[in-house]
Amino acid sequence: MANEKGTVSSKPDAIDLSHHLSVLARNRGISPLKGLHKYFGQPGILNLAGGLPSPDYFPFNTVKADILVSDSFSTKSTSGTKSPLSWIWSLFSGGQETTAPISIPKYPVNPEDVNLATALQYGMARGIPQLMKVIGEFTAKVYQPGYANYATLLHAGNTDGWAKAVTTLCNPGEGVLTSEWTYPSALATMEPHGIRTVPVSMDGQGMSSVALRELLSTWDEETRGIPRPRVMYTVPVGQNPTGATMEAQRKKEIYKVCVEFDVIIVEDDPYYFLQEGPYVHRSQRSSGTEQTELDDERYIEGLAPSFLRFDYQGRVVRLDSFSKTIAPGSRLGWFTCNPVFAERLERQSETSTQGPCGFGQTLITELMINWQFKGYLRWLKGLAFQYKQRRDFFIDCLVEKFHMELAPASESLFDGSTVYVAYSTRYHSEKAARRILFSFVPPSSGMFIWLRLHLDNHPKVQEVGQEDLEMKLWIALAEGGLLIGPGNMFAADKTKSAYPGHFRVSFSNAEHENLKKAVDIFTKVLLEFYETD
Amino acid sequence: MANEKGTVSSKPDAIDLSHHLSVLARNRGISPLKGLHKYFGQPGILNLAGGLPSPDYFPFNTVKADILVSDSFSTKSTSGTKSPLSWIWSLFSGGQETTAPISIPKYPVNPEDVNLATALQYGMARGIPQLMKVIGEFTAKVYQPGYANYATLLHAGNTDGWAKAVTTLCNPGEGVLTSEWTYPSALATMEPHGIRTVPVSMDGQGMSSVALRELLSTWDEETRGIPRPRVMYTVPVGQNPTGATMEAQRKKEIYKVCVEFDVIIVEDDPYYFLQEGPYVHRSQRSSGTEQTELDDERYIEGLAPSFLRFDYQGRVVRLDSFSKTIAPGSRLGWFTCNPVFAERLERQSETSTQGPCGFGQTLITELMINWQFKGYLRWLKGLAFQYKQRRDFFIDCLVEKFHMELAPASESLFDGSTVYVAYSTRYHSEKAARRILFSFVPPSSGMFIWLRLHLDNHPKVQEVGQEDLEMKLWIALAEGGLLIGPGNMFAADKTKSAYPGHFRVSFSNAEHENLKKAVDIFTKVLLEFYETD
Repeated sequence: MANEKGTVSSKPDAIDLSHHLSVLARNRGISPLKGLHKYFGQPGILNLAGGLPSPDYFPFNTVKADILVSDSFSTKSTSGTKSPLSWIWSLFSGGQETTAPISIPKYPVNPEDVNLATALQYGMARGIPQLMKVIGEFTAKVYQPGYANYATLLHAGNTDGWAKAVTTLCNPGEGVLTSEWTYPSALATMEPHGIRTVPVSMDGQGMSSVALRELLSTWDEETRGIPRPRVMYTVPVGQNPTGATMEAQRKKEIYKVCVEFDVIIVEDDPYYFLQEGPYVHRSQRSSGTEQTELDDERYIEGLAPSFLRFDYQGRVVRLDSFSKTIAPGSRLGWFTCNPVFAERLERQSETSTQGPCGFGQTLITELMINWQFKGYLRWLKGLAFQYKQRRDFFIDCLVEKFHMELAPASESLFDGSTVYVAYSTRYHSEKAARRILFSFVPPSSGMFIWLRLHLDNHPKVQEVGQEDLEMKLWIALAEGGLLIGPGNMFAADKTKSAYPGHFRVSFSNAEHENLKKAVDIFTKVLLEFYETD
Repeated sequence: MANEKGTVSSKPDAIDLSHHLSVLARNRGISPLKGLHKYFGQPGILNLAGGLPSPDYFPFNTVKADILVSDSFSTKSTSGTKSPLSWIWSLFSGGQETTAPISIPKYPVNPEDVNLATALQYGMARGIPQLMKVIGEFTAKVYQPGYANYATLLHAGNTDGWAKAVTTLCNPGEGVLTSEWTYPSALATMEPHGIRTVPVSMDGQGMSSVALRELLSTWDEETRGIPRPRVMYTVPVGQNPTGATMEAQRKKEIYKVCVEFDVIIVEDDPYYFLQEGPYVHRSQRSSGTEQTELDDERYIEGLAPSFLRFDYQGRVVRLDSFSKTIAPGSRLGWFTCNPVFAERLERQSETSTQGPCGFGQTLITELMINWQFKGYLRWLKGLAFQYKQRRDFFIDCLVEKFHMELAPASESLFDGSTVYVAYSTRYHSEKAARRILFSFVPPSSGMFIWLRLHLDNHPKVQEVGQEDLEMKLWIALAEGGLLIGPGNMFAADKTKSAYPGHFRVSFSNAEHENLKKAVDIFTKVLLEFYETD
């Protein structure tokens, strides 16, 4: 499919860039040397123009690291899987993990090698060339954008990337389309700029394309108080907080609506490589081939595609991050977008963060050079399988503790998915009737399980109300020793709480032992909570 | 003086925070858990609330570095001074520099030790606690703020710090006070937010307090089109581009005006530790005690104080950076300001950059722990002396090539300083009368020499005009093999060019050999340029 891709010109006919360009025009040129750039970087020319310190005075002569080898984690459950407690063993056994050394000198042997003299100097906001090359190759092979002349450039993590997208693409008084449940920090980034949230209804795959079209086609600026939104924020894989994953067909539908109503899609996709596959009840789990065991090409084809794959008009700004695949403290990620937006985003980086930290850039570049594309993909497969095991174990524990039944979704939020419904009968005292305690859809990606508590079944619901019950339950869980995310903090529309009683549970950062303990606490507290009378 | 410092309350009487707080109010709370924070961080509580990846899956087991020892560079010219070509020697001799190893493990032996499991995880936007401690100690000992309850928190370098200050302290349609010549990137940060530049006249110490008072006291909103500015941007030491340094008395005067007109001072001070002392003509340079040889206490007292020292009202936001003292690629620095602003700036970091890169934070923290406060101060003294030598050498070369005379400043820009005036008589052909070619004030700090070319003496000035002559000279220098900074790019008011013919020369990032070569090119091109007829 990459054979006959079109290019997006600076003013492509297919996309009405006029609005977006008029917004971008605010970001006026900061390149006062204009046509004089040709003199820079010429060999032999003495440059006393820049305000650069001398690299002789950088106190780091070498930066080094011991990195894990790319196949450190198994991709299948049969043999060789690391025990969940392996890190404890490695502590006491003096480090059984296989590592490889990497090293970055201040002055390189070959000028094109990664080096501190360049990477710790002022440099290109878009990133050091060696990392740009790695990222360019990765983006092409994995995301396969639908047009040829897309650009990639670094940002300091997706939160930074989104902040830059907001100030580049939006003006005060405009609105941004989001899912009805969404990442609260993304909204907090917009609010101080006077940019409003416009929630769109969701179903089992995240944002509904039907609801989106309905919303945009009936938009009335007078009633709404703001013009029809031109920008969308979406977390399409392992959505935060619901865990929903948008498959290819849905993405095509959403893209089509965005073409029709000229909406730019900002795809914030940090959980992309935590595609764990469907949850299968333990009793039915076979020892067949795991997705993560597939060869590279089939593995990539098996992943939910990025919006980039369908982006023939250059209207997608994709945000990639190393936060979930390497470490959050990397504060490193990249934009993939059309060259017009890329130029503006780079200007914005130049006047805020500049390039990401040179220590981080060099260490991650050397890691990638050591691993190579194939090795990084192997690492990502191992990672996906590790999180899959955590998800499976957590849900196994829940299933064991409650009487569960499978049912088609009975409400729009989970529409199209099979819902696990937990009943009270098994452990609950006899005085209570059989009733639904909570329900959830096992996520196929990401770090989160989104629990819907059926507080309408609580004995005191008339008296206390569901919103207060949600908070009371959260406090009871905390008092019992378990912190989970209260759902209301993820509501895009803070003025109402359409679905009280949601909680986000992260299974990502706890050993199996603690996941089991968490389910024990949850069960005990929940049953006591419903027994209140 | 630190004994009886007052504190700045969240609504101190002395400062009219009402305007600033109303601006800050845009930045609405993003802390949806409100009173529930008490549950977080309790020992024994299971936290499945955060969206954290597991540190077991961070592929870095150890990060290490070889750092220079803190006394790597001499603080005096007599013996032991490294040759300017020492880096070349160190390349060929296999590294004669003395280094020390530092190492950061993923999991620490003692929980309070710097470690990757914490620093590479999502964390406090203000920075890791070990670095906050180092910075807190440094700020107290060196800057000695005028009130007790100031706060420090990290940012990703001063350009990022300034961008955050702008969006925290200013609204669209407001103005920011700057020097008439200033750092262009600082203006480019403001422009897209619709914030206007309000230039203030300068003299030999940078911004004039007299001009500032005149400007503010006669401000007419109707004529000006914007309200009286409430925020000031200043680079008070080794100013970019003029190299001017503001001493204590001037800072007190400026502060007083800012109290009177309720202006917040943003002090962008990256060159603070490049205080090189006055330039002394080579013939008069004694081998007496260098400032950098003083003991720590006297050295600190000898530096131009920060605005923080006089800040009894909490109206200074100081931006510190490791860019010129460690390396620009660190992308690491810190705010020092009152607790009200600090809280807002931290919220802003949480929704944009988050904390600076964990690799950079840990490496710089371990460097500082290795060096200790005393060692870092020793490093800074060595650094100041290195740049002093580069400055002296560059000016020595200029003085040697031209007939120079010393004169009191004849124009407001350099008012109060002794100006070096370069005449054409010595080398110039006889057909030209003795005339001033250029003039400059040797900077006492920083990286820059600000040359004023007297283009009014150019034979073709009537015909071509000074602005075009400036560009022609810049191109002639570039064609000759020397790039310097054209002055017009540093003009705060882009609509006029009050002083055409300025150029900024950085002596910071060239070996002595190249500095000499640069002066040779400059001399040759300039003389040819004036000979044109």
